[in-house]
Amino acid sequence: MLARLETILSSRQFELAITALIILNAITLGLETWPAAVELFGGFFHLLDKAILAIFVIEISLRLGIHRLRFFTDPWSIFDFVVVVIALIPSSGSLSVLRALRVLRVLRLISFVPSLRRVVGALLEALPGLGSISLLLGLIYYVFAVMATKLYGEAFPQWFGTLGESSYTLFQIMTLESWSMGVVRPVMDYAPLAWLFFVPFILVTSFTVLNLFIGIIVSAMQSEHEATAEADRAALHEETESVSTEVKALRAELAELKAIIVSQGQARGETDRV
Amino acid sequence: MLARLETILSSRQFELAITALIILNAITLGLETWPAAVELFGGFFHLLDKAILAIFVIEISLRLGIHRLRFFTDPWSIFDFVVVVIALIPSSGSLSVLRALRVLRVLRLISFVPSLRRVVGALLEALPGLGSISLLLGLIYYVFAVMATKLYGEAFPQWFGTLGESSYTLFQIMTLESWSMGVVRPVMDYAPLAWLFFVPFILVTSFTVLNLFIGIIVSAMQSEHEATAEADRAALHEETESVSTEVKALRAELAELKAIIVSQGQARGETDRV
Amino acid sequence: MLARLETILSSRQFELAITALIILNAITLGLETWPAAVELFGGFFHLLDKAILAIFVIEISLRLGIHRLRFFTDPWSIFDFVVVVIALIPSSGSLSVLRALRVLRVLRLISFVPSLRRVVGALLEALPGLGSISLLLGLIYYVFAVMATKLYGEAFPQWFGTLGESSYTLFQIMTLESWSMGVVRPVMDYAPLAWLFFVPFILVTSFTVLNLFIGIIVSAMQSEHEATAEADRAALHEETESVSTEVKALRAELAELKAIIVSQGQARGETDRV
Amino acid sequence: MLARLETILSSRQFELAITALIILNAITLGLETWPAAVELFGGFFHLLDKAILAIFVIEISLRLGIHRLRFFTDPWSIFDFVVVVIALIPSSGSLSVLRALRVLRVLRLISFVPSLRRVVGALLEALPGLGSISLLLGLIYYVFAVMATKLYGEAFPQWFGTLGESSYTLFQIMTLESWSMGVVRPVMDYAPLAWLFFVPFILVTSFTVLNLFIGIIVSAMQSEHEATAEADRAALHEETESVSTEVKALRAELAELKAIIVSQGQARGETDRV
Repeated sequence: MLARLETILSSRQFELAITALIILNAITLGLETWPAAVELFGGFFHLLDKAILAIFVIEISLRLGIHRLRFFTDPWSIFDFVVVVIALIPSSGSLSVLRALRVLRVLRLISFVPSLRRVVGALLEALPGLGSISLLLGLIYYVFAVMATKLYGEAFPQWFGTLGESSYTLFQIMTLESWSMGVVRPVMDYAPLAWLFFVPFILVTSFTVLNLFIGIIVSAMQSEHEATAEADRAALHEETESVSTEVKALRAELAELKAIIVSQGQARGETDRV
Repeated sequence: MLARLETILSSRQFELAITALIILNAITLGLETWPAAVELFGGFFHLLDKAILAIFVIEISLRLGIHRLRFFTDPWSIFDFVVVVIALIPSSGSLSVLRALRVLRVLRLISFVPSLRRVVGALLEALPGLGSISLLLGLIYYVFAVMATKLYGEAFPQWFGTLGESSYTLFQIMTLESWSMGVVRPVMDYAPLAWLFFVPFILVTSFTVLNLFIGIIVSAMQSEHEATAEADRAALHEETESVSTEVKALRAELAELKAIIVSQGQARGETDRV
Repeated sequence: MLARLETILSSRQFELAITALIILNAITLGLETWPAAVELFGGFFHLLDKAILAIFVIEISLRLGIHRLRFFTDPWSIFDFVVVVIALIPSSGSLSVLRALRVLRVLRLISFVPSLRRVVGALLEALPGLGSISLLLGLIYYVFAVMATKLYGEAFPQWFGTLGESSYTLFQIMTLESWSMGVVRPVMDYAPLAWLFFVPFILVTSFTVLNLFIGIIVSAMQSEHEATAEADRAALHEETESVSTEVKALRAELAELKAIIVSQGQARGETDRV
Repeated sequence: MLARLETILSSRQFELAITALIILNAITLGLETWPAAVELFGGFFHLLDKAILAIFVIEISLRLGIHRLRFFTDPWSIFDFVVVVIALIPSSGSLSVLRALRVLRVLRLISFVPSLRRVVGALLEALPGLGSISLLLGLIYYVFAVMATKLYGEAFPQWFGTLGESSYTLFQIMTLESWSMGVVRPVMDYAPLAWLFFVPFILVTSFTVLNLFIGIIVSAMQSEHEATAEADRAALHEETESVSTEVKALRAELAELKAIIVSQGQARGETDRV
């Protein structure tokens, strides 16, 4: 019976049904942001949401029941699990923010639409290659954040009061948003040499992020190249293979000829001896 | 007679005449934004505009008459048709905005200048390959827009009041315009953890858009590469072809030699037998 | 005597002397922006500037005298000529802005330092390939500028009053500077659907500029590739050449062998006939 | 004994110990920005900091003692040395800014974590190839800064008062931060043609910086390509090598055959003569 359930759960029809439910849920979640629609159909939306959530809970419970611990080896399954669990947490009081997280459920679409799954897979694949450079960027960030907090924390607590605030402000500066008019010029009124801190920060992080991008471009190219290079080598192999076959045939014929000559020589030798 | 009309409509001279009319129309439409010019030549501009429009209507009617439904299979023809139809809609009252759309007519230049047509063709060619990643970006956008509306809609109705306003504000944030000083810092005064929503949004959309760009670069490279690879393989084929020809000639000569040896052997055999 | 002058003018020493003068002039022009330095050495700076200008005038006059009209076929010579002529125009009254243009003279350094000349040459080389796409960008700009002037010119004369102001504002929007908070949000208060005009403008121009960049990257790659492909083909040719030589030698030996066999056959035929 | 010390200093365990100390120091330096933590453990942090600094001083003194002047040939050693010396300078009074520089010590992590060292090495490797284009950018900057100071220095001393202020403002404009709303529009109220100065500046520097980036991308590609090309050539060589071997074997066999035929001819000649 488990095998039969698994067949159903992984059937194309079942996947399409879940996909349809996700899209329907996405639409109702969107409509819920529209007061006029909520007034008219709020109860229906609520009911539908509960019903869809129930189906998701059953679906994931069944998959959990079938795959057991193997379920948690597939990152998409973990994602599905987390998204559904979030919706089950009572979202009253201080946790009301969790109600907004319910919409994350729509992202389940990624795991049900193959082309989206492939794209996200490709995006995530690019990440591990960025490990060292991200670590370096993190280190640079940390050093600059600590320095900014020590240097400007007292004078500008709203920007550099704590390590967290400094990190946020430095992130803003890295995105170049209002970095000069909004932050650095006011700081320079207090500490005229502040540009010696911020301009190198912008140059260093821009250069590092740029190299992070180039890393992704080069590795994307590389995999594309390797495919071409592979095809080139196959073409080369085929071409030389044909010449090689010719040459081998030639050797065989030459060997044959040699045999004829030798046999003729022997024949004649015998004739002569006769 | 239809065939003759078609020859005229697709002749180089006719195309140049239409191109000249479009450029003339572009200039008068530009001059119409200059009050001093309008005061002096406003009536003339109006007349010229009507005349050029009339010519365009006749031209497109003729092309429609000749090609009939085939007319709508060419995207450029559809574009020409739409642009001229817009100019024919009475633009009084609430539709006065359509008068500004008349200038879209100048874009017909693209379909008459071959180099522009090629460039636009190349730009549009890059689009289908971006399908999945655009769909993903749209999904991320939708999820974040719904969440933003639910989380911050009440407190900041001017930015996140409706799904549409949230989408616009998130687009602004994605372009990094005033994202921190203008939007996120005020939001953080109300919800201190708002950066947990916006910073990941910036990182995720930047990374996705970056990959969209890389996709275009890689595919542009790819087509360029394939041309080079094609040339390489042709060169390879030619080179090995010449060796192959040599080897085949060698085999032919060896076969000939074998025939000689065999015939000599037979001749001698006969001699010996004599 | 002309030939001797030309030898002097194009000698390494003379070029170094001019380079030194340009650098010296660059320094004094920079110091002139420092009031304290001007107070002390203003007269000296002025004298030095006049002296260096005089040397430049003599140098260019001599080059003009030697090369005559050929002088104007070299873009660098034209640049040198224009820069020196600017300095000779009396810069009093309304033309006082020309005094600031004197510093353009420092750009002559580009034509005297070979590595700078190469870099600028490479930058300018990338331009012609961008012709069609720049023309397209210009056309899009023009259409949007005319539309913006007609749609928003009356309500926002400071941004869209004339075609020129609209072009400038659209350029600002294209660079994403304050596009939303500074321009589009205020416009949307007046015309709520203005985002239908500006968001497509941003998407279309970003996408076009991106493709302009990709065009430069791909063509830079291409020339690099062609060099590699050339080397690859040379390597291929060399490799197959060696095989080809071997095969040719083989043919020659086979021909020799054939001659031996034939001659042996004939010899034996004769022997036998004897 | 020196050799033994050197073995210890370059042992994996010692490196790990120093790495651990750097990380510990990074954490305490970060915690020092948190007033609550300082109140409780301030004395302990201070002590730990002194202790770690002492260990670093001893470590570097030992390395200096062992390698002597060779110590200063390794850029990482110089970096370690500078960072520790900064911490030793008494940071009271006007030099209190140096206390913030102590955190630079955390960057020593780069020289102890191999993957970080590799990434930084790769980043620095890209720099020399950018020499000419950086020089060009510097020259353009200088010319525009001098011109801006002369043209707008009097009217806008806060932005263009001195060469330094102009350079800073032009850097801000190059990063496109508030360039129009914040700087150029106010300047245009005073000098309407100012856009003729700033728009070309943005276009020229953007184009140059873009080419700087493209230079890095192309050179990154190039090294990747060369590796592929190398592999391709090796594959080609191997393939033709095998054909070449075949052909050589063929020649050897042909030579053998020739010997047989000649010997047979001689044998027969002798027989005949008999």
